[in-house]
Order: sequence, then C-alpha cells, then structure tokens
Amino acid sequence: MNQADLRATPWQLSERARKLTSSAIREILKVTERPEVISFAGGLPSPATFPVEEMRHASERILRDQPAAALQYSATEGYMPLREWVAARYSVNGAHIRPTQVLITTGSQQALDLLGKTLVDPGSRVLVETPTYLGALQSFSLFEPHYVQVPTDESGLIPDALDAALTANARLLYAQPNFQNPTGRRLPLERRRALAAFAKDAAFPVIEDDPYGALDYAGAPLPTLLSMEPDHIVHLGSFSKVLAPGLRVGYIIAPEELHFKLVQAKQATDLHTPSLTQRIVYEVVKDGFLDTHVPTIRALYRDQCHAMLDALERHMPAGVEWNRPEGGMFVWVKLPKHVNSMKLLEQAIAQNVAFVPGGPFFANEAEHNTMRLSFVTVPPATIDIGVAKLGALIRASI
Amino acid sequence: MNQADLRATPWQLSERARKLTSSAIREILKVTERPEVISFAGGLPSPATFPVEEMRHASERILRDQPAAALQYSATEGYMPLREWVAARYSVNGAHIRPTQVLITTGSQQALDLLGKTLVDPGSRVLVETPTYLGALQSFSLFEPHYVQVPTDESGLIPDALDAALTANARLLYAQPNFQNPTGRRLPLERRRALAAFAKDAAFPVIEDDPYGALDYAGAPLPTLLSMEPDHIVHLGSFSKVLAPGLRVGYIIAPEELHFKLVQAKQATDLHTPSLTQRIVYEVVKDGFLDTHVPTIRALYRDQCHAMLDALERHMPAGVEWNRPEGGMFVWVKLPKHVNSMKLLEQAIAQNVAFVPGGPFFANEAEHNTMRLSFVTVPPATIDIGVAKLGALIRASI
Repeated sequence: MNQADLRATPWQLSERARKLTSSAIREILKVTERPEVISFAGGLPSPATFPVEEMRHASERILRDQPAAALQYSATEGYMPLREWVAARYSVNGAHIRPTQVLITTGSQQALDLLGKTLVDPGSRVLVETPTYLGALQSFSLFEPHYVQVPTDESGLIPDALDAALTANARLLYAQPNFQNPTGRRLPLERRRALAAFAKDAAFPVIEDDPYGALDYAGAPLPTLLSMEPDHIVHLGSFSKVLAPGLRVGYIIAPEELHFKLVQAKQATDLHTPSLTQRIVYEVVKDGFLDTHVPTIRALYRDQCHAMLDALERHMPAGVEWNRPEGGMFVWVKLPKHVNSMKLLEQAIAQNVAFVPGGPFFANEAEHNTMRLSFVTVPPATIDIGVAKLGALIRASI
Repeated sequence: MNQADLRATPWQLSERARKLTSSAIREILKVTERPEVISFAGGLPSPATFPVEEMRHASERILRDQPAAALQYSATEGYMPLREWVAARYSVNGAHIRPTQVLITTGSQQALDLLGKTLVDPGSRVLVETPTYLGALQSFSLFEPHYVQVPTDESGLIPDALDAALTANARLLYAQPNFQNPTGRRLPLERRRALAAFAKDAAFPVIEDDPYGALDYAGAPLPTLLSMEPDHIVHLGSFSKVLAPGLRVGYIIAPEELHFKLVQAKQATDLHTPSLTQRIVYEVVKDGFLDTHVPTIRALYRDQCHAMLDALERHMPAGVEWNRPEGGMFVWVKLPKHVNSMKLLEQAIAQNVAFVPGGPFFANEAEHNTMRLSFVTVPPATIDIGVAKLGALIRASI
C-alpha cells in the first residue's frame, strides 16, 4: 500500500485527491493490531459492550417478519420509525424536534461528508475547535476549506472568542461539546448557553457533533445546544458508541430547509443507508433498551478512565499535565513543550505501547507536545503497565 | 418537502448545493406507491428474487460465530474474504485481478461518489453515453463537471466517435456496456474490443459500470472491458440486482494507484461499509450460491420482458419504436418527435399507469420523446393492461 502511494497514478486526479496523503500515524499504528501491543490508540468502543443477543434477535425478527422491506431499496431520508424515535428522544425540556428534521446517515462520518458537500466551497472559512476531531478535518478537507481555529482552554471552546473578525464569512462552526475527541473535554453549561445564543444570531450553522453524549459517567448529561436553539443548531448523533459501530448508523437533525439539501446530497452519495441495519437498530432500541444498556457502558468506561487517571498520577514525571474527563473515551495529555509526541510514539511502539500523537488533531498550527490516550479497550492492570512504560520514556526525554 | 424546497435556507450553501434541484419526476412518481398504479417506473428489482432464507441463515451464523467482528469498526478497504471472492470471480479467461484492487462500497452509488471525488474538478470534462444513467449524472454533478455526450446508436456507444476533439482533457468516460439503464442496450463484442483498446491509450480511465451484467437472458455474457484491459479499466459491480439492494454492497475494481486514493476518499466519506452487511453477502455467495440463484432471476425477468415486448407490439401505434433487450430490467421507447413524454406521464398517472420520461437521462441536449419502461415488478397480465393504456394515450397524442 505504501508502495502504491508512492507510484504515480497514470490518470489526472482532482485537486482534492492530489492533496490526500497517506497518514504516517495510520501506518505506524498498524502495528497496534499485534496482540502484544498495549494500545491506548484506539477510538474503537469495547466489543464487551455490544448487545449481541439483542442484535441476533432483532435481525431474526426482521428477516422473518419484514424481509422484503429490509432487503429492498428504501427512502433516502431513512426508516420512518427510526426517524420518529430519534425525534421523540430529542423532544425533551420543551424542545420539539420533528421527524422531518431527521436524516439517517451511514455513520456520523457520512454526516460530515454531507455537510461538507452542502456548505463548503473551495476556500470557504470553516471554524473548528483547537484541537478538533481528525475525522471531521479529513471529511471537510475534501471540499478544500480554509480552516480557522477557535481558541479553547481546559473547558473547551471559548464563546467570547467568536468575534466578528474570527467568524466573518464562515460557512459553519464545528464542535463536539461532550467529551470531545481528542481532548475528552466537556463544555460547561454557561458556555453552552453562550454558544447557543451565538448560533441564534450567526449567519452560518453551528454543528453539534455528539457521539459521546450518552457516556457521561455520572449519568447527568448537560443540555445539548440543540435543546437550547432547535432551529439554529445542526446536531449529529450516532449509534456507534451506544450500540455498535459496525452497523454504521447515525443521524443528522437539521432545520427542514437544510435537511432537504442534505437528502439530495445523500441520494447522490449512497442512495440510502442499508435498510437492514436501520431496522436492526430500531428493533433493538424501540422499547427503551438504551436506558438499561448505556449505564453498563458508562460504568465500564468510568472504571477504566479512573484506572488510567490513577496510573498517570503514579507514573508521570513532573511537567506532564492531563485532564480528568467526566465521560467519553479519551484523556488528553500535555507533555513539556520540547517533547515531540510523534518521536515518543516511535519509542513507545518499540516497547509495545501505542497512543495517538496530538498534532494531527490541529487544523493549522499543531501543538506537537500532546497525545490522546484511550482507555476503553484496555483492562485496568494493563493500563497501569502501559502508562508506566510511557512515564519512563517521557522521563527519559525531559 | 416541496414547501421546504421553496423556502430559502437561512445559511449560505455551497455552489454545488445551490445547483441541486428537486426532481419534478421524483415528485410525480411518488404516486406510484399507490397500490392501484401499474408502475413501469421502478428501477427496483423484484422482491420475489430476494433469497430471504439464505440471508436469514447467514445473518444468524455471523451473529453467532463472529459477533464482535461483525459489529465493530472494520477496514475501509472492505472485508478481505469478500474482496478475495470478487477478485477470484473476475479472474477468468487469463485476466488476473488482485484482491488489493477491490474496494467494497456502500452500494454502487457510492462508487460514483468516490470517483467524482478523486477525478473531477469544477469544469472537468466528463464523457457520458447519450443517454446515460441518471444516478451517475446526479453523483458526478456534485463535483461540477462539464459533461460531454458521446454519440450512440441502437447498439450503444460508438467507439469511432471518441476522437481527439471529443476526448481532449477528459477526466473519465462513464459507460454501462451491459443492458444500460435507461436503454437496455448491450454493447456488441466488436465495440467492446474497440473501447478497451481506446482505454489502453487514453489519458483518463474508462469506467465500466456493470450492475446488470449477470442478467443476460440467454446466460451467455459478453466479456467485460475489464477482462480485456485489466490495467486500464475501472469496473463497478454490485450485489443489488443479484442478491438484494437493501444491503447496499457494491465494489470498485481499479488499478492499485487509483484504488489507494479511492480508499482515502472513502475513509473520509463513511469510514467503511457496514461490517455486518459485507459479511452477510460473503456468507451467502461464498459457496457458489449465485450460480444457481441468478438463473432464476434471469428467467423471471426474461418472461416479463417478453410480455412487455408482446404488449408493445399489440398496443403501440405506428411511429413508436423500441428495442428488444437481451437482458436487464429496461425497454427504451421512442415516440414520434413531437410527443413529449413528460406531458404523457401526467396523462398516464391520471389513468394509474407510470413510467420514467427519458429527458433526465441526457446530460445536455435531451430527447423528450423518449421513455424508460421497467417490467421486472409487474406480472405479465398487468403489463398488458398498462401498455394498452399507454398505447391509447400515445395514439391520442399523435
């Protein structure tokens, strides 16, 4: 594959395709598939959380009772009972979400592609957090935007920084207010209110990407931006972290005017999300399954998060900083300024430990002394061993 | 939905999104869902052909034996055993296709999106047949190409027409050599040889989109362009017409250099095609199921095609012309020059008969006296009733 990447394509590629480069990190991280590697690199949920029995029964019932519909082409907008379920789930605290605002997508990644298609021209200004989700950068980049980094601090995006100069001519602002990938930060209530108020007056949509919202360890979620300004927020949701990612089922909640354009774009992109997987998801969730299932995921991730925080406390030398996530899958670690986490990764891999360097999560100016640690697929005792090795390597680099 | 289309989006859309318009035909054809309508409009395969039992057993086995893998994130390139199966199936008559050339896509529609992403810039010249597949036009149009119509006759694309003036600076040529949607035409062997030879010297790829290739009524397929020039053809295949479209599983076979770019584009588009549906397809096809299953689909479609040809013979007035497909799902009808099939559709709908007007299948200059008739979901006796009504309406319009 590497070799193929180096060989020139005999045909002329599009501008956007020529800018696509193979990710050095992705290549290095291929070794994390070896069983002896302790990997904090994964963004994958723990397979221990997949409700296999429920999936099996759902799929059996569907292929017995509604096989023709589950195997036939279906509406681009998605399976109506699932759209209704999503709308009802978000219609809380006075907010009213209509099923006609819901578009089912082939995972949340496709939601990003459709937003890029409908909102971004070459050179369009796209506002993102500092740092931001790498998958969003990859997706939007195909539409050749000009990225603008919105300042952040330990609590996430700083709404006061969204002044006229920064936001002029922007096409969208992309944010993950809950347990952001890569930092694990959660935007506090006051900032949510300020960001929602900003969205109300903005000439462009604020995109609230929320794959991790259900994974708050205390089970006390903060209100979504969508619930505060349902007509001015575009909300992305996913079943990947609360059911299973291999089904690739997510959704966009958007005002009908944009929804209609997103549907047209999706029709040209994959016609519709597989009928079968949409129905499996609906069959599993329709009677309240998530209300009992999600707390088990939260408990697992909380325990492993605490194991990691304890291990960091034990093994990291002075000068290393990290946050204490209240939910989600990631801890964000800041090393002393001169320590390059990409170089550290090479040393760590040699000792069978992996993580993701923070650099690629920055749209423009990267902070190379950062790293993303995921704890969700590693048992506590192993977490300690891995963090101890990282601590020793960092101590040696200081 | 119509109303939403008329309301302005409060946010600035991309150039490409502003060009997206609601299809008037799509709106009209919504009435075809009424049970009393005889619809020749569908592009849907007959649900009578779906191998429901096999799907049920496959899905049961997968969720019993490999649930974690089937529900987890997986490689963007696709499920390796399925890629190997595809490569082996195309490695015939001396052609050698490598699994590393195969990318599994979320239906064939996604293959078009990925080709648009990697090959087409705004204003790029894209060569298409006259007429061509509407879904391809929708997909490529998001990348704002300049379409060039390649001349055709009753046998399809005319390779001799591909001179330097027509093909200069083109980024791709898109064709459906087998039972094309919308015309049902099959490209003869000599023209295939000529087109493959052209591809060998061309500075751009020839895209061979082949969803209907297995549906030749005599079971005597002509060789694919891919088999003639495996290094110079990009071949698109699909399980939608031979298994079931609701799974959304297709594939692109391309030289590794382009394959690598397509993989990068797909990663940004939907990460990967659902792990579960890929494994279901593999489980169903791996032991030769298609060899016994596809002949049953062929027989059904052949009988209904003949019923339609007989009905056309009986009911169409002089001056109406149509072809005699050797496979696939469509007949192409030419009305006298002054008869507009869009106007005819309105009259037909009033009499509970539907079809698709031919105009939208032309990239630039449309022939509005054409129509596409599909026979695959209508029983022979009903085909006769529907065609009789159309014949009477056309007679009245002449």
